[in-house]
Amino acid sequence: MVLVRQEIGEVLRDVRLQKGRTLRQVASRASVALGYLSEVERGQKEASSEILASVADALDTPISVIMREVGDRLAVIEGLSVVPDTLPDDLVAQFDADLAMR
Amino acid sequence: MVLVRQEIGEVLRDVRLQKGRTLRQVASRASVALGYLSEVERGQKEASSEILASVADALDTPISVIMREVGDRLAVIEGLSVVPDTLPDDLVAQFDADLAMR
Repeated sequence: MVLVRQEIGEVLRDVRLQKGRTLRQVASRASVALGYLSEVERGQKEASSEILASVADALDTPISVIMREVGDRLAVIEGLSVVPDTLPDDLVAQFDADLAMR
Repeated sequence: MVLVRQEIGEVLRDVRLQKGRTLRQVASRASVALGYLSEVERGQKEASSEILASVADALDTPISVIMREVGDRLAVIEGLSVVPDTLPDDLVAQFDADLAMR
């Protein structure tokens, strides 16, 4: 069974690492417990929509960017996308580039 | 605050209606209570990843398709996408009428 929370956790962690932030920094800014955020990142806990919004905000990343990446990774897992899983490195850069284009 | 569960609920409902299924049919096939599925569709309850997978399966729709649509709709809400996936018929008609007036 493909579990959405596992992909959400991986994307949140990847975005955090791309931005060079620690778990502690993001947890503090999002007002969530460090241990809880760690469990969310490992796909062990479901994050409520409010917490997702809060963590995305703490990562300075729109929730839509995170959820689109989740959808793309799920598509790869489900064999519905032939795009290789090389998106994480470019995820934030692409978003920043998109913003700069506006 | 943009809430992911509201978009998930809307997408699940839209997919169900597109497929001409009733709440009762989908709830039964997904082994979830009808009232619960109704609350999820209205964005009032967070669905666990297991329930999401179950409902997607009951809708014969890959979870990646649902989550990509969720991401796309969130992007529109966040103003990060100016092109909806499908233009409403009347909007297209109005655009054509505007063009003809010029």
